[in-house]
Amino acid sequence: MTKEIGITVKKSLDFSDWYTQCVLKSGIADYSPSKGFIILRPYGYAIWEIIRETLDEELKKTGHKNGFLPVLIPESLLTKEKDHFDGFLPEVFWVTKSGDCDLGEKLAVRPTSETLAYSMFSKWISSYRDLPLKLNFWNSALRAEIKSTKPLIRNSEFLWQEGHTAHADENEANKEVRMILDIYKMLIEEYLAIPTLSGFKTDKERFVGAKYTTCLESAMPDGKALQMATSHHLGQNFSKPFEIKFLDKDTAEQYVWQTSWGISWRVIGAIIMVHGDDKGLILPPKISPTQVIIVPIYKDESKTIVKQKAYELEQKLKDSLIRVQTDDRDEYTSGWKFNDWEMKGVPLRVNIGLRDIQENQVELIRRDTKERFYVKERELVNQTLSILEKIQSNMFDRAKNLLQENTRSATTLEELLSVLDATGGFVACSWCGKRECEDLVKEKTTADIRIVPFNAKNNISSCIGCGNQETIEVYFGRAY
Amino acid sequence: MTKEIGITVKKSLDFSDWYTQCVLKSGIADYSPSKGFIILRPYGYAIWEIIRETLDEELKKTGHKNGFLPVLIPESLLTKEKDHFDGFLPEVFWVTKSGDCDLGEKLAVRPTSETLAYSMFSKWISSYRDLPLKLNFWNSALRAEIKSTKPLIRNSEFLWQEGHTAHADENEANKEVRMILDIYKMLIEEYLAIPTLSGFKTDKERFVGAKYTTCLESAMPDGKALQMATSHHLGQNFSKPFEIKFLDKDTAEQYVWQTSWGISWRVIGAIIMVHGDDKGLILPPKISPTQVIIVPIYKDESKTIVKQKAYELEQKLKDSLIRVQTDDRDEYTSGWKFNDWEMKGVPLRVNIGLRDIQENQVELIRRDTKERFYVKERELVNQTLSILEKIQSNMFDRAKNLLQENTRSATTLEELLSVLDATGGFVACSWCGKRECEDLVKEKTTADIRIVPFNAKNNISSCIGCGNQETIEVYFGRAY
Repeated sequence: MTKEIGITVKKSLDFSDWYTQCVLKSGIADYSPSKGFIILRPYGYAIWEIIRETLDEELKKTGHKNGFLPVLIPESLLTKEKDHFDGFLPEVFWVTKSGDCDLGEKLAVRPTSETLAYSMFSKWISSYRDLPLKLNFWNSALRAEIKSTKPLIRNSEFLWQEGHTAHADENEANKEVRMILDIYKMLIEEYLAIPTLSGFKTDKERFVGAKYTTCLESAMPDGKALQMATSHHLGQNFSKPFEIKFLDKDTAEQYVWQTSWGISWRVIGAIIMVHGDDKGLILPPKISPTQVIIVPIYKDESKTIVKQKAYELEQKLKDSLIRVQTDDRDEYTSGWKFNDWEMKGVPLRVNIGLRDIQENQVELIRRDTKERFYVKERELVNQTLSILEKIQSNMFDRAKNLLQENTRSATTLEELLSVLDATGGFVACSWCGKRECEDLVKEKTTADIRIVPFNAKNNISSCIGCGNQETIEVYFGRAY
Repeated sequence: MTKEIGITVKKSLDFSDWYTQCVLKSGIADYSPSKGFIILRPYGYAIWEIIRETLDEELKKTGHKNGFLPVLIPESLLTKEKDHFDGFLPEVFWVTKSGDCDLGEKLAVRPTSETLAYSMFSKWISSYRDLPLKLNFWNSALRAEIKSTKPLIRNSEFLWQEGHTAHADENEANKEVRMILDIYKMLIEEYLAIPTLSGFKTDKERFVGAKYTTCLESAMPDGKALQMATSHHLGQNFSKPFEIKFLDKDTAEQYVWQTSWGISWRVIGAIIMVHGDDKGLILPPKISPTQVIIVPIYKDESKTIVKQKAYELEQKLKDSLIRVQTDDRDEYTSGWKFNDWEMKGVPLRVNIGLRDIQENQVELIRRDTKERFYVKERELVNQTLSILEKIQSNMFDRAKNLLQENTRSATTLEELLSVLDATGGFVACSWCGKRECEDLVKEKTTADIRIVPFNAKNNISSCIGCGNQETIEVYFGRAY
């Protein structure tokens, strides 16, 4: 038995403690002995595998290929693009020794792979025939977290994918940046059931070394904003220092245009935060490693027959490609199992006992609405398929309401501050585009511009900072 | 166009140069700017993905679950099992700084994860209900190569999987060790088409910290032995220092019994070495990312119709789950394409031209035997399926002959040395079991005992070292 049973704090009372308990007790992750690092346990990794497979398929369909880059990057490469290096410097882990020997040159433990990848691009690209080059890497990145850490949201090492592409012209790179953002949005909204705002980062917030950054942002139930994924246009900022050049069809030499983009296991943290309740996780069916858990309810004398029926139902559901499991462990009570699978967030539970068998029925329990109802055994597969779909869309709808409730607007600094303090979330404001006004708001409210929406509205009101009349609408928020 | 066309050296004349050209020119891998590190390019990574998926499925079927462990391991953990630490110490990369700050404790960049995993096992295991615990990790390991490096065979970082299990009793751990070795053998023989010898390592050669090590060994065409995979019984060597204890059904406290095991991308190197020829790679169909390459042969006026037919054939083959691709690039000649796909080792090529269309036929070219023949279009799918099977088994048979030819025997040190110098490969000798004799042979011949076969024969002749009459048969070889 686990030492502490279930989540012991309400989501609404202590969100932070509730979240940590959800992560640890459901078997998603655990703390590593090194401060700031976590371990992904099988339940968490299984979710990551589904996310990875889903995204990987989309990336392959759109012509991207996977590769592997070493985790250690020579200092001399990392320093080649100055803004990039300055941005990452404070959080880089450095290898300085191998065995007992000091290394001639320090090696950075991958904070991100632009520099290493592009040192290779300059070798691989020489002709227009080599373009576009569209590579992706499933790996982990390391950034020493000096601020407070939070499992899956902010750690010194995280699983992610990083995409790196090179194109013959600027506009093709523009299209790539947006296509990738669309794929991320599809993944996050349709699979993770989390609605997002999409748009640009401001110059202050863009990726170090990028020409511009696009991103997806979501609101968490505690009112904080969470960056879900980013897709960057790098312009020729890297191709020039790394000399990534190609001969075009007219044999003129040109620098390539580049993009990079990534999404991390942080989205698993978002799933927990957005969908979970006081009993624990609620997983969207499309990414739940177990979509249906069958719990046979038996006494000693009915054990064989009830388990037999459970396996039979499991097989039927499996045949319809439903991810299903039977919890047939004798060493745990049915009540313990109910609580455990609820905490783990399995979307649908099937209870089956001797009485049910006699009546050719099973009991279904929805995790999202807690509804319980009986269905005839012969209708189990169809009902399950249809309920799983309903759960998926209900979860998205609930989350969408949450985002709408958490999106407000303000026209003055005072109003912005009071909205942020009262409820958090995103606050739409007008902004003149100047860094000073962005900094002023940050200083007064600790909020950043999370996103400049694509097709942002112009001149709705005057700038929240300086009162200037020429403005665009942006969303402020306090971030994780 | 690539700068140098094709492999420029014969396999039989300069095996080492031939191998490196195969790796680099086929697009499998490239050198990283850091000495000793390589990059896996899309073609190499695609092979790794197929190997990974195949093995992952087997591991999941047998109850193993995947997880993620951080790449940095505190020094204090790594030192807990002394033999283990001493064994890895010379090749460990150490992180000593983050940003500009010195770390309080050095962090090792994962040479292997026993210590980190088992520090967690002690937290996760408390009852017999928590056993067996069978985890697997797909990641990379880093070991500073001080000797010469060879792409995929010996590098400072390599992709692999590492399995770690804990069991309630010793015999269950014994069974796990052998079951995993059987899975590896199935993968290597049935998928990679490489025959292996299986058995134990001697005490001298076993994994540092293990009670015993089992392994698979293969012979490469240059006469060197290559260790393909290992599976270790760790006894209670780690569970004691890491205090991994559980209460059994009688509530008595016991230490767990453990295993660990791994296979790396080195097997891709073995595929290249064993199967390749002067034209480049020959990939076994079961792990070839592209099993069939269709090359439409056209002039300007026949382009549309020939390409159209090629796409139609591609679709038919795809519908039968064959991994097929059409090389429809106008910027390369057919001859260039033939050479390129030959170098990449695609097992079967389909040529299709205007004349073939008129005669309802296509030309098939086998990569392994270079045979060419025409088949009727309507028979294409069936013929392809059957030829791919034939190629797979022909490749295994050829490799099996190679292994048999490369397995000899010797009864004296002089004979052993002359066999090793003349042909290399495995040499069966009788050995008394003493370390001194093993060391003596190493000193005189530079060969190690690669493997003590399961059910090794006893007392065939006297010990190759000391002449003692009580012996077992072992295989000596010079290793990579």
